[in-house]
Amino acid sequence: MRSPTTFDNVMATTTWTRRHILSLADFLPTEYDTVLQTAASFREVLSRRTKKVPALQGQVIANLFFEPSTRTRSSFELAAKRLSADTLNFTPGSSSLSKGETILDTAKTYLAMGADMMVIRHREAGVPQAIATEMNRLGVRVGVLNAGDGQHEHPSQALLDLFTICSLLDFERPRLELLAGKKIAIVGDLLHSRVARSNIWSLTASGAEVHLAGPPTLVPQLFAEYGSGRDEETNNLFHTSSFLLHTFSPTQDSPTRTQDSKKTPFLHWEIEPALQDADFVMTLRLQKERMSAHLLPSLREYHQRYGITRDRLKLCKPDIKVLHPGPVNRGVEISSELMDDPQFSLISQQVTSGVAVRMALLYLMGGSKI
Amino acid sequence: MRSPTTFDNVMATTTWTRRHILSLADFLPTEYDTVLQTAASFREVLSRRTKKVPALQGQVIANLFFEPSTRTRSSFELAAKRLSADTLNFTPGSSSLSKGETILDTAKTYLAMGADMMVIRHREAGVPQAIATEMNRLGVRVGVLNAGDGQHEHPSQALLDLFTICSLLDFERPRLELLAGKKIAIVGDLLHSRVARSNIWSLTASGAEVHLAGPPTLVPQLFAEYGSGRDEETNNLFHTSSFLLHTFSPTQDSPTRTQDSKKTPFLHWEIEPALQDADFVMTLRLQKERMSAHLLPSLREYHQRYGITRDRLKLCKPDIKVLHPGPVNRGVEISSELMDDPQFSLISQQVTSGVAVRMALLYLMGGSKI
Amino acid sequence: MRSPTTFDNVMATTTWTRRHILSLADFLPTEYDTVLQTAASFREVLSRRTKKVPALQGQVIANLFFEPSTRTRSSFELAAKRLSADTLNFTPGSSSLSKGETILDTAKTYLAMGADMMVIRHREAGVPQAIATEMNRLGVRVGVLNAGDGQHEHPSQALLDLFTICSLLDFERPRLELLAGKKIAIVGDLLHSRVARSNIWSLTASGAEVHLAGPPTLVPQLFAEYGSGRDEETNNLFHTSSFLLHTFSPTQDSPTRTQDSKKTPFLHWEIEPALQDADFVMTLRLQKERMSAHLLPSLREYHQRYGITRDRLKLCKPDIKVLHPGPVNRGVEISSELMDDPQFSLISQQVTSGVAVRMALLYLMGGSKI
Repeated sequence: MRSPTTFDNVMATTTWTRRHILSLADFLPTEYDTVLQTAASFREVLSRRTKKVPALQGQVIANLFFEPSTRTRSSFELAAKRLSADTLNFTPGSSSLSKGETILDTAKTYLAMGADMMVIRHREAGVPQAIATEMNRLGVRVGVLNAGDGQHEHPSQALLDLFTICSLLDFERPRLELLAGKKIAIVGDLLHSRVARSNIWSLTASGAEVHLAGPPTLVPQLFAEYGSGRDEETNNLFHTSSFLLHTFSPTQDSPTRTQDSKKTPFLHWEIEPALQDADFVMTLRLQKERMSAHLLPSLREYHQRYGITRDRLKLCKPDIKVLHPGPVNRGVEISSELMDDPQFSLISQQVTSGVAVRMALLYLMGGSKI
Repeated sequence: MRSPTTFDNVMATTTWTRRHILSLADFLPTEYDTVLQTAASFREVLSRRTKKVPALQGQVIANLFFEPSTRTRSSFELAAKRLSADTLNFTPGSSSLSKGETILDTAKTYLAMGADMMVIRHREAGVPQAIATEMNRLGVRVGVLNAGDGQHEHPSQALLDLFTICSLLDFERPRLELLAGKKIAIVGDLLHSRVARSNIWSLTASGAEVHLAGPPTLVPQLFAEYGSGRDEETNNLFHTSSFLLHTFSPTQDSPTRTQDSKKTPFLHWEIEPALQDADFVMTLRLQKERMSAHLLPSLREYHQRYGITRDRLKLCKPDIKVLHPGPVNRGVEISSELMDDPQFSLISQQVTSGVAVRMALLYLMGGSKI
Repeated sequence: MRSPTTFDNVMATTTWTRRHILSLADFLPTEYDTVLQTAASFREVLSRRTKKVPALQGQVIANLFFEPSTRTRSSFELAAKRLSADTLNFTPGSSSLSKGETILDTAKTYLAMGADMMVIRHREAGVPQAIATEMNRLGVRVGVLNAGDGQHEHPSQALLDLFTICSLLDFERPRLELLAGKKIAIVGDLLHSRVARSNIWSLTASGAEVHLAGPPTLVPQLFAEYGSGRDEETNNLFHTSSFLLHTFSPTQDSPTRTQDSKKTPFLHWEIEPALQDADFVMTLRLQKERMSAHLLPSLREYHQRYGITRDRLKLCKPDIKVLHPGPVNRGVEISSELMDDPQFSLISQQVTSGVAVRMALLYLMGGSKI
């Protein structure tokens, strides 16, 4: 293996002080930029013939996916292997959990076995945070990465979305400031989407103008209850969406963050104003289970009102690009032929970005100065 | 690791131009021989103390087993590891498929992650072909290997069977021509067997005399419908079985193939004429589900009429050898004590051959000049 | 990787002649000491920055966990990776077993693929022994390790318990003789515990005074039937427990073993006499299924009578330590806060010891002179 000079140079000038990556609520602009630059360095590694670096050789990464996953687990596993780390995969089906062990005890078992990092997915919000808190309490130098917790956050997905977009704007030097003033629409099931929550943090931090669009039933319930917080004149969702995020994000009051300097998302019940002159559209996955919960009349009607189609894209800027975290329900969130059109779709770039961004996150956590 | 000189020498004189391995229908004699020789070189590697070569270091092989498998998946996984490749395992139980993603989208996700090759098993015929077609359409250099698709083909199994037999005839230089004039019986559930379909292609290509025997209900349905195609005088199945294979093998009309030069299989409703003076017997796995479909009266009766027993082997040549793709139903396809008799059974050699042959296939695909 | 000098030195002076590790019934004191010293060497390896040695490079270890397991399987997998071996994982859910293959045939398939060692867990007692016997019959140099078979034995768990205790008494030179005269209580479901069975062998071999305590219903049934064998004056269980172990341990009559020189376990229906002045307490996992089998009135009552609590520990020596094989039912076998108290609990040390001890076992088997 060649010496990974590029990213070592990057790191020589950077100090990464975050041991756990749990939420983007308190991410600093410099942190976003470090992730983006490190991921760009790893993208270069991945273009080599031998796509591996010895950065994490001998380290053990435990993939604790309490909720089943193929795509995200494979992406993390490949990222770990390309950093020469060893991986341990926890599979819930054949686990001690069915034997009554607590989640914290499972995590502590992997800690005791020698795990240096834990990548955690769980259907309950807050589990990765709880494990990280326990690791801190125990005084061990183990990093915890949230790979999706309930309807809370999915930071690595939002960071790979960010990397994908910023790389399009400046391939060599993807950085946060590139998004300032861009209009970005997030469309779909905002109520249940951990991807949307994480993206709202990163995109608002960048200074982009974020527009959220979706059916009233799939807008966070709290919004209805706290509707009075909505500024009728500007249609500015700040107070309510902030409140919503607040309930999930205990760290947002970090003093290092300047909430006020950020733009705040706008809400729309119809898709058209969100798409109008947009630079990027992010569609969210629609869980088919929502239908049985009577939150949606039908997939067909959803597509008619909120699906991304070639016609609707005419509302956007001419070089509009579409993102989707996958897996896609073809013909629901997005028309099938549009999804496959490389002129518009960034979906496969997102997956490719995922490996580089996850390599960056594991690498940064592994070398954290804290 | 030692430099893999042996197989490098082999490859220096060979040009492999097939990116995907989907079917043996249009395999050329030179291709069979290249696989056999390359596998022999890897068998030598596997006899060393350190059984690894760096041939595919840094490459990623995605094992997409949509249909559960232990034996074939493990064999491919070990082959990949011994070539120093990294593997990603797709497990259908915890997959995005249950979330409504299409198979092509799953494959494209692994492509976007950086997979260099995909090993695919699916219970529907044609899925590996469809994925390969999509990869070609996208213009990417990703090899697709069919690890068993429905009742269509299982090329790597037939190639390891071929390697096992040819190695017995000439250990150092296994090659196709060794089988010319040998009589080989394939016994059992021909209707449902992808193993049989692939073996018929390779064995007829070798010039062996192939005899098929099984109960009328387990002979391809098309045979009954197209019974008039059967040449009553010679009991020659060529037209009908060719028709059958035709329906599954869109590539068989390749101009590079000289169908007419091949011997064609004979069909028997009874096992005895198939075994008479045979050099090799291949028994096929009997799926117990066939009983509930009323295709078979009972396992006992099946064994009585078509089971391989010590008595029945007296019909064959004295040095008769028995093959079975596994897993075996002891006492059904073959008597239990015969299965364990190394004088007759090649079953464990088949499994051993499997690793060397699959190393050869992955290696050849990885270095394809196309 | 650095040359593994420490354990090579250890091994230079040791001859390990046991190919399979199936039971501790006939383990010799020198074998216990070799395992303990080798594990101590590997613990040193695990404290390095790069926690790997090339000891088993190119070797293949098949993890055949017919019974689901997370903790033990992960521990063995990590041990194998840190010895640079390749691993193959058999997963029962997607296996050939559901296709009717016998367990021996599954093992022989992995043998034929090239497995050098097999780590086997099965819910039936005797399966690893049966596979080892078959491997011997075939004349192959493949080691079989019992990773838990039914209610019979779990040798690697008992060895890691032994290593944990002995390391506490002498970190640099853990050895069997350190336990001579120590009082060790084993508390809980003795009837169903393979962990207890293996521990009884190792602890009695060490010369420790072993006390067993549990509810009458969870004491081996044979005891009730053979109650007359109990020596009423000494409450000495030797004859009956020996009989019990006898029924599971065909190898115990090995001439190399001097049964009489060992202390024999004592039985108690109440926990207090077992804890009185104890040096170590091992609690056993309580399977909740026992309740539905009417062997236990309730978890609460079990905890009241046999749970390890801070109060009960006052009966023991002041430096009492508590072990549990995991996973723990908090508040049942042991009070939740005690489990987390590093002054008393050795539970996380046990998990850490597990990796070093399993590295030692695989390493010794891999270099067996037989």
